[in-house]
Amino acid sequence: MRGTGYQTVTVFAPATVANVACGFDVLGFALAQPGDELVATRRAEPGVVITAITGDGGRLPREATRNTAGVAARALLDATGAREGVALDLHKGLPLSSGLGGSAASAVAAVVAVDAVLGLGAPTDVLLRCALAGEQLASGSTHPDNVAPALLGGFVLARSADPPDLVRLPVPEGLACAIVHPHLEVETAAARRLLGDTVPLQAAIHQWANLGALVAGLFQSDLALIGRSLEDVVAEPKRAGLVPGFAAMKQAALEAGALGCSLSGSGPSLFALCATAAVAARVAPAMAAALARAAGVACDTWVSPVGPEGTRVTRASDAACAT
Amino acid sequence: MRGTGYQTVTVFAPATVANVACGFDVLGFALAQPGDELVATRRAEPGVVITAITGDGGRLPREATRNTAGVAARALLDATGAREGVALDLHKGLPLSSGLGGSAASAVAAVVAVDAVLGLGAPTDVLLRCALAGEQLASGSTHPDNVAPALLGGFVLARSADPPDLVRLPVPEGLACAIVHPHLEVETAAARRLLGDTVPLQAAIHQWANLGALVAGLFQSDLALIGRSLEDVVAEPKRAGLVPGFAAMKQAALEAGALGCSLSGSGPSLFALCATAAVAARVAPAMAAALARAAGVACDTWVSPVGPEGTRVTRASDAACAT
Repeated sequence: MRGTGYQTVTVFAPATVANVACGFDVLGFALAQPGDELVATRRAEPGVVITAITGDGGRLPREATRNTAGVAARALLDATGAREGVALDLHKGLPLSSGLGGSAASAVAAVVAVDAVLGLGAPTDVLLRCALAGEQLASGSTHPDNVAPALLGGFVLARSADPPDLVRLPVPEGLACAIVHPHLEVETAAARRLLGDTVPLQAAIHQWANLGALVAGLFQSDLALIGRSLEDVVAEPKRAGLVPGFAAMKQAALEAGALGCSLSGSGPSLFALCATAAVAARVAPAMAAALARAAGVACDTWVSPVGPEGTRVTRASDAACAT
Repeated sequence: MRGTGYQTVTVFAPATVANVACGFDVLGFALAQPGDELVATRRAEPGVVITAITGDGGRLPREATRNTAGVAARALLDATGAREGVALDLHKGLPLSSGLGGSAASAVAAVVAVDAVLGLGAPTDVLLRCALAGEQLASGSTHPDNVAPALLGGFVLARSADPPDLVRLPVPEGLACAIVHPHLEVETAAARRLLGDTVPLQAAIHQWANLGALVAGLFQSDLALIGRSLEDVVAEPKRAGLVPGFAAMKQAALEAGALGCSLSGSGPSLFALCATAAVAARVAPAMAAALARAAGVACDTWVSPVGPEGTRVTRASDAACAT
């Protein structure tokens, strides 16, 4: 598509689960659903305008310089020296502040859509860097543990954040996920402050043993090992209290057959990895019921395969360069 | 061999490198050489006697209850309810207190030899537990990061120490190691005290990102990724000062083409992983020369493939049960 592009491109960017129990700040995976949809239309005038946002209850800034997707798109235009501009329509399919990588999805959607609509052909590392610029605006974080799996799909380990050194990990066939999003809000910055600046050495050792074993389990499709490794002794013990009903939901997930269950990102959503979508389809309502019983809190649930694909163009119109 | 055994069995148990830069307390690998040799002879009288130890300069206790190999052998006799006993001849091929897993080698040699000579057929987890009992006597440590690779060969990750949850990792073809043992002693307990009880959260995150990436690199035979991941931001910065010339040796190793270089266990030995034995054969003398220049310290060096085999019987005599 380099050098030609389209008049209009629609992309889908999936939800992502960061941390994945033992991989705090370095590991994430993509779901197949839900996600954000973004429509980019080329404009002769340079720069970025946001023409519409739906699904956010009016809460996201419409000004491109203050919007995650707008900042990511602008970063890509600048990085590639593009002389045209774009108009963005963003349809939020992900709830805000849910711990499901919503701002990463919007940022990645923007860079993939702008790259495609203007035919920029930017390399992956440039797309990643520009999406991170947008993500940073929203969350203050420069960790690519949501952005990288949203862009690439599957499980992605970030050995290093800056410069990004990303390692794609295999997805065992059939691996699926139950997501429960309690109708609560957890402020990412507050969740991060709870962690403090140091960690007991023994807990850190425990955590890296689990992460090493989880990586091995993914390569070997060893579901039992994956299950034993999905244990967070660093962040979850401090953050679980932010989500009423956490323990009840986790217990319900494991009793219903999940391999493991923990906070998605900094919460309030929980994820439960499962051997199959059929197991995940039992796990999600069991978790929702436990949440209602234990804390009287309502929630949304999703059941999805781990998504091997990442963000992709779903529709492109007017392939001729119509400027 | 179960239920029959031999009159005499000789086993070889290899040196092991624990920690492997980013895998503090949880990862180790076996070399092909050097190692300890142990000869076990069956006796009608129950219990363990040590009949000879060579290669230790007379420093190891000869009393079986105070000797690593003796304690490990006794633990196995007890665990299996054996009614016969064994006499052990231990030939130390590994220098004492070198950081090359010498006590683990002796303990594993003892359990493998006793199991074979008496035809006990003990399962791997029992051999491991009994070897750990011997190792604990010597080092105070219950981490299986030396014992497990000495027993199983290759790279072994211990997801959990108690109960042991061991994950064998693949060895990329040709992967080799240069070992330099400076003629210094580092007390393991002192090296451990240097670490303190906590670690900065950011360093811990860095460490588990590296360990996850190292595991992925081993599965993918990605030597460049292995090299980038061989970085220890937790123990090495605190312990390197115990080994005069450490920085010069590490720099020499990397300049001579090593993938990575760090302390073996708590030192004083250093290991340098290399893509091939030919590279390792250049790296070892470069490190030795750097040590001599920087600190005026003499050393032994070894060059060995990463050993896929672990401890094995090399000779068995009088297959009939001669009691």
